[in-house]
Amino acid sequence: MKTLILHGPNLNLLGTREPEVYGALTLESLNEKLIAEGQKMGLEVTCQQSNHEGALIDALHSANEWADGVIFNPAGYTHTSVALRDAIASITPPVVEVHISNVYAREEFRHKSLVSAVCAGKISGFGWRSYLLGLMALLEI
Amino acid sequence: MKTLILHGPNLNLLGTREPEVYGALTLESLNEKLIAEGQKMGLEVTCQQSNHEGALIDALHSANEWADGVIFNPAGYTHTSVALRDAIASITPPVVEVHISNVYAREEFRHKSLVSAVCAGKISGFGWRSYLLGLMALLEI
Amino acid sequence: MKTLILHGPNLNLLGTREPEVYGALTLESLNEKLIAEGQKMGLEVTCQQSNHEGALIDALHSANEWADGVIFNPAGYTHTSVALRDAIASITPPVVEVHISNVYAREEFRHKSLVSAVCAGKISGFGWRSYLLGLMALLEI
Amino acid sequence: MKTLILHGPNLNLLGTREPEVYGALTLESLNEKLIAEGQKMGLEVTCQQSNHEGALIDALHSANEWADGVIFNPAGYTHTSVALRDAIASITPPVVEVHISNVYAREEFRHKSLVSAVCAGKISGFGWRSYLLGLMALLEI
Amino acid sequence: MKTLILHGPNLNLLGTREPEVYGALTLESLNEKLIAEGQKMGLEVTCQQSNHEGALIDALHSANEWADGVIFNPAGYTHTSVALRDAIASITPPVVEVHISNVYAREEFRHKSLVSAVCAGKISGFGWRSYLLGLMALLEI
Amino acid sequence: MKTLILHGPNLNLLGTREPEVYGALTLESLNEKLIAEGQKMGLEVTCQQSNHEGALIDALHSANEWADGVIFNPAGYTHTSVALRDAIASITPPVVEVHISNVYAREEFRHKSLVSAVCAGKISGFGWRSYLLGLMALLEI
Amino acid sequence: MKTLILHGPNLNLLGTREPEVYGALTLESLNEKLIAEGQKMGLEVTCQQSNHEGALIDALHSANEWADGVIFNPAGYTHTSVALRDAIASITPPVVEVHISNVYAREEFRHKSLVSAVCAGKISGFGWRSYLLGLMALLEI
Amino acid sequence: MKTLILHGPNLNLLGTREPEVYGALTLESLNEKLIAEGQKMGLEVTCQQSNHEGALIDALHSANEWADGVIFNPAGYTHTSVALRDAIASITPPVVEVHISNVYAREEFRHKSLVSAVCAGKISGFGWRSYLLGLMALLEI
Amino acid sequence: MKTLILHGPNLNLLGTREPEVYGALTLESLNEKLIAEGQKMGLEVTCQQSNHEGALIDALHSANEWADGVIFNPAGYTHTSVALRDAIASITPPVVEVHISNVYAREEFRHKSLVSAVCAGKISGFGWRSYLLGLMALLEI
Amino acid sequence: MKTLILHGPNLNLLGTREPEVYGALTLESLNEKLIAEGQKMGLEVTCQQSNHEGALIDALHSANEWADGVIFNPAGYTHTSVALRDAIASITPPVVEVHISNVYAREEFRHKSLVSAVCAGKISGFGWRSYLLGLMALLEI
Amino acid sequence: MKTLILHGPNLNLLGTREPEVYGALTLESLNEKLIAEGQKMGLEVTCQQSNHEGALIDALHSANEWADGVIFNPAGYTHTSVALRDAIASITPPVVEVHISNVYAREEFRHKSLVSAVCAGKISGFGWRSYLLGLMALLEI
Amino acid sequence: MKTLILHGPNLNLLGTREPEVYGALTLESLNEKLIAEGQKMGLEVTCQQSNHEGALIDALHSANEWADGVIFNPAGYTHTSVALRDAIASITPPVVEVHISNVYAREEFRHKSLVSAVCAGKISGFGWRSYLLGLMALLEI
Repeated sequence: MKTLILHGPNLNLLGTREPEVYGALTLESLNEKLIAEGQKMGLEVTCQQSNHEGALIDALHSANEWADGVIFNPAGYTHTSVALRDAIASITPPVVEVHISNVYAREEFRHKSLVSAVCAGKISGFGWRSYLLGLMALLEI
Repeated sequence: MKTLILHGPNLNLLGTREPEVYGALTLESLNEKLIAEGQKMGLEVTCQQSNHEGALIDALHSANEWADGVIFNPAGYTHTSVALRDAIASITPPVVEVHISNVYAREEFRHKSLVSAVCAGKISGFGWRSYLLGLMALLEI
Repeated sequence: MKTLILHGPNLNLLGTREPEVYGALTLESLNEKLIAEGQKMGLEVTCQQSNHEGALIDALHSANEWADGVIFNPAGYTHTSVALRDAIASITPPVVEVHISNVYAREEFRHKSLVSAVCAGKISGFGWRSYLLGLMALLEI
Repeated sequence: MKTLILHGPNLNLLGTREPEVYGALTLESLNEKLIAEGQKMGLEVTCQQSNHEGALIDALHSANEWADGVIFNPAGYTHTSVALRDAIASITPPVVEVHISNVYAREEFRHKSLVSAVCAGKISGFGWRSYLLGLMALLEI
Repeated sequence: MKTLILHGPNLNLLGTREPEVYGALTLESLNEKLIAEGQKMGLEVTCQQSNHEGALIDALHSANEWADGVIFNPAGYTHTSVALRDAIASITPPVVEVHISNVYAREEFRHKSLVSAVCAGKISGFGWRSYLLGLMALLEI
Repeated sequence: MKTLILHGPNLNLLGTREPEVYGALTLESLNEKLIAEGQKMGLEVTCQQSNHEGALIDALHSANEWADGVIFNPAGYTHTSVALRDAIASITPPVVEVHISNVYAREEFRHKSLVSAVCAGKISGFGWRSYLLGLMALLEI
Repeated sequence: MKTLILHGPNLNLLGTREPEVYGALTLESLNEKLIAEGQKMGLEVTCQQSNHEGALIDALHSANEWADGVIFNPAGYTHTSVALRDAIASITPPVVEVHISNVYAREEFRHKSLVSAVCAGKISGFGWRSYLLGLMALLEI
Repeated sequence: MKTLILHGPNLNLLGTREPEVYGALTLESLNEKLIAEGQKMGLEVTCQQSNHEGALIDALHSANEWADGVIFNPAGYTHTSVALRDAIASITPPVVEVHISNVYAREEFRHKSLVSAVCAGKISGFGWRSYLLGLMALLEI
Repeated sequence: MKTLILHGPNLNLLGTREPEVYGALTLESLNEKLIAEGQKMGLEVTCQQSNHEGALIDALHSANEWADGVIFNPAGYTHTSVALRDAIASITPPVVEVHISNVYAREEFRHKSLVSAVCAGKISGFGWRSYLLGLMALLEI
Repeated sequence: MKTLILHGPNLNLLGTREPEVYGALTLESLNEKLIAEGQKMGLEVTCQQSNHEGALIDALHSANEWADGVIFNPAGYTHTSVALRDAIASITPPVVEVHISNVYAREEFRHKSLVSAVCAGKISGFGWRSYLLGLMALLEI
Repeated sequence: MKTLILHGPNLNLLGTREPEVYGALTLESLNEKLIAEGQKMGLEVTCQQSNHEGALIDALHSANEWADGVIFNPAGYTHTSVALRDAIASITPPVVEVHISNVYAREEFRHKSLVSAVCAGKISGFGWRSYLLGLMALLEI
Repeated sequence: MKTLILHGPNLNLLGTREPEVYGALTLESLNEKLIAEGQKMGLEVTCQQSNHEGALIDALHSANEWADGVIFNPAGYTHTSVALRDAIASITPPVVEVHISNVYAREEFRHKSLVSAVCAGKISGFGWRSYLLGLMALLEI
């Protein structure tokens, strides 16, 4: 089962950016962990990151061709992007929305998500393990 | 590791109530499944359900004495109960908020949660497996 | 045809509480009247009252087992309870929402009802006769 | 006891317009039924319909001269007409607001009523029988 | 002069729950203090606590039979309960609303009170001494 | 100088409708007074009233042909009619908006006016004398 | 193919009313143009205008009997009329909403349309040619 | 009959400040005109101006001792001062609110008035003649 | 212990202004009472009143130099003054906010307080005794 | 006359994405059709599509150099992009906004357009023919 | 070039008030610095401070007579004063709005400014150097 | 000291786009000026511009590696981009937000900034000199 893990804007700075909020793991190490854990579960995991809304849309479209499921952390675009919502609604593989931090314990504008309604499900607040739970969730779907 | 699974209002009707939204599993069967799955993970799972906001608060207070973690589906009280929020914030064991359905794909008033900000994390939309993922999440915390 | 008449919070004070708004009839006399009138129409009427949101949910669930219709005055819970809304949506017998006073001529927060959308219909403003009209309405449904 | 039944805009299309919402009865048949049922209750029923807000105001003013009670379905004007509200408040006979469909289960803008606060009471959601209950309610007032 | 001191949800955890916000005094010690202080002022003080909205309504109704005044800390129900508001409005003895913390220096949703309009007065922000001032206020009324 | 005095919906009931709000003068007597007062000031006053929004628009359009100024009391349409606003903006003679009662001391929805922005000026709260002041204002413009 | 072109309030003043917004063409000339252009496309065009909301509803109902399509400029009623929305939803022929000016570049209250959701499509901002494009659109439907 | 004309903030700049909005008349000339016109009507007019909210409150309180009526242009304080509203409500002589410009044709925040509800009436949009009409209105009250 | 009692706008009219809301006691008598009661408690009470927002800020700044506590009734400025909020936050002595009437039972705009968040506590609704309770509260702080 | 047809995000999936909403035509076929139809009207049509907001801005800037008119379907960016609005306002050729579906019959957040105010006009709801009507509209401008 | 530096409410406490927000510099030292820096740039700087809204308006009016530019920190009045906005709009010299702290990183109510729209420009967040940059800005205008 | 000047969307059109708002200087000339002025102050200035939100995020991330400060004009993204806000919060060098025009004197939606709270400070309204003041501000930080 082929799986895309898609990281949104600013996640390339993981480990260096506000570690008290996002943890000390770099994106590279996180990806390695997730690929290894995926392998154990029988998932072939591919990881991508982009700061460009359009590139994230392109990646979702492309996953439509090859992936059986998507784990997506839309980060800052979660709250503002109708275009990403439409991209998720346009493709066949289920998309699981994940967030590292508990967005509900942060600023008001982070409480609204434009993409949740069209995702298969949502996992937030468990640090990098939100992704891990996302993989488990995909297995269950 | 002792775990409380706490079901909020109307979940006693699981399996009979709008099965297209909530699935065909009854609450009893769900609880059996979760206890069995918990056992496999080394979790001693206890299940409770109540339609009474006050009884749910009591259960959370009581869990403070004996549980190491709580999986909580506040159902209809999610959107209206400051008292439950305060109860969660008052106790030591981490509380994971779970929802069976994708609340973001339903009525507007279900998009707001008063309890998420004080929970450890949130999992929604994966059917009864949201609870299962909740157990896995508790293990990770 | 078996009918539950369910009275919400503070209605036990009927006749003593703000009689200029709610009339001088006590709850006991009201129930007697409604049982008698029901009998004339061929309805077997049972009356319950509770100040507890959870007990009202329990009563609705239980009515699911034995009643053919429900007359429900959710009183103060009308405007704040998603859990009661879910309970009404969960059961099979039709629920008719009734109010003694004209809630639209009172405070702004009484104009919003969380339960109306899932009730069969709504009758308000006719004093204790709102219940009587509710019985007639159940007969018609 | 003389009674005006006043139908608001688009109700002339009853029976042909969205029958799944408004039922298959034409306005003419409905009026005949209501006149007959009224007669049984000792009510002398007169029926009028207009698509014109001003004509409905005129009809209410005129009813002030001859009617003992009014059953009024303001339809689309319910949500937008301060002028009709003022007309109802200006006249002596009690006005009962009725709606065929459950307006609370429809679009958000149909949940607000500008006229309810000045009506004697409100009945909605019982199909054409909302009018019948309205007649019974008038008898009780 | 007989006085009911009524504590709302989560106040049973006083002393252990967020002591930096609510102080280190347990509910038991607080009640002892208030009974003693009341005695000095000539007030016969009875204390009750419940996490159940319905039980708080019951307690207010019952106080209607025997108490000359009520000190009420509705805690989390302050911001969400129309039913408690109606209960306060339904009874004869004056009700003084008290809060331990300065609710206005906390989350936005704690700034709105549904019960203040029907209470005799309001005291907030003086720690456990808010209750003491409440007793003094009752004496003055 | 030719002047149209245009009365909006329900003003035909003047003198009989809520006299504590609108005074005891009938529309007929008011018009006579205004014609007489106008004559003293050298104004040739014509009076019209309609409950129909469209008829009021027609009257404004027609005044465009013959009147030098308009005194307009849009009554209930003040708060809801974009079409009347557009009619006022479409014609050349200045329109003075008048109200008998102090609309700002009444319901919230009466505080908003859709027509004020396109009128020459506004006079409210002086009883029937608001019209008289309107005539004086027209003389000054 | 029979087509109704229906003009809403104040459009009878076309050519004289704010020509910088609505152009210098009178309604009569516009209608002539549209009838001629319609003829070229094989459309039998009939034109009506009214300032009365009720008359516009009547015209739509009547078009239900004879027209294959409707071009409707609801003008000021666009933003305030639920009754017109219901009329459009009640009839069979497709209704194309047209506006002469770019309503989105004008006052905030003109940005909201109550009728768009039930129209077949919407064309705005092209001056009198919005009608012409509406005819072309009807041909395509 | 003694009358206070009270000018609010920035009106001392009259004639020099945005003359296209407020006219070319200086405050001094305006006051002279109003005193003269008042004299003709038998009114003894006194004029005051202040940029200080507190000084305006003081002036209203003081007018309570000697004046039979007040013409008040609260200018920028109209939209923000609860204290001035309370001052007007605290005194016996009727207060007529006047505005030089048509505040409804200006910025949104100028459409709300905190003082109108407690004034005897309101006159706006007639340039300096709004004051003159205010004097006439006082005579009529 | 030196205490400033600071009265905001319009309180100089106490006893004459709306006595049904604010009581029949004049400000002078109230101050005498409070000084006497303070003396009994060992508080050296000084009283000031001003209708000027700026003078109230000055008084708070000055109290910073000599007072150990402040009782402040900001009256109409409660709801509109960020500057007073900043002044309270800028000084060291604790400030207790008091109100004579139950502001929550009055107009909507009186429900919001800009200063409560930076005060030590708040007492409202007990008539002139709110000040007395404020003195007791200061003693307790 | 040179024309740019610019397609926004997710339109590359046309024909495969929710065909019941967007139709079965692929983007390639649509473009071919539009180029052919344009040719018949004497328009030299060029088509571009991008999922990148920035690329769409670049395309508009570039069109400023060579195109006489633009047909733009901003899709999901319609509701969220101030940057695209500024781009449209920055260039000389007229831009016609088109939408395939009737956005007003879909989710609330699709009803607001940030770009309409600076476009020449807007056409929505006619399926792929919205583009065709856009070409006709450009010809007319 | 003559310049007025105008400090709003509570700025007299600079250096003692919340130094972590506003810095340790007293107002006197700040003024000395600014006068010296101004002299270097060829600006003749005069400094004033007041806690009175009216006095600030007076100062702006007076600056109209002698100053070539104004640096204004309206502090707490920024968010609430229409009267100050009108004063700025009434005078000829350009006014630069400055703030010591980053108001956008503080409470929600500090994000709205009523005066920015009529100032020449705005500088905030640079501590006391915001004034210095303001002087440089004035030189550039 | 190395400084990045980062220009957001549409600023490449500077000098040609609405010169009455943005001035006649092209971006190239502006950059030359700023580099020269920077040199005089001892700042090594690098300039970049992009219409792509993602490219701006990339540029900020990259500046984290080499720059000591950033001057950023986010233009249209100011009001809509959480992702840019997160990027600014993620990097170490201080970011000064600048705007050419006075955004507060333009459309309502330009008054809200999502990025200001995480910037060091903000300068707006001084034309191209806003950048110059930004450089001076960076020197001061």
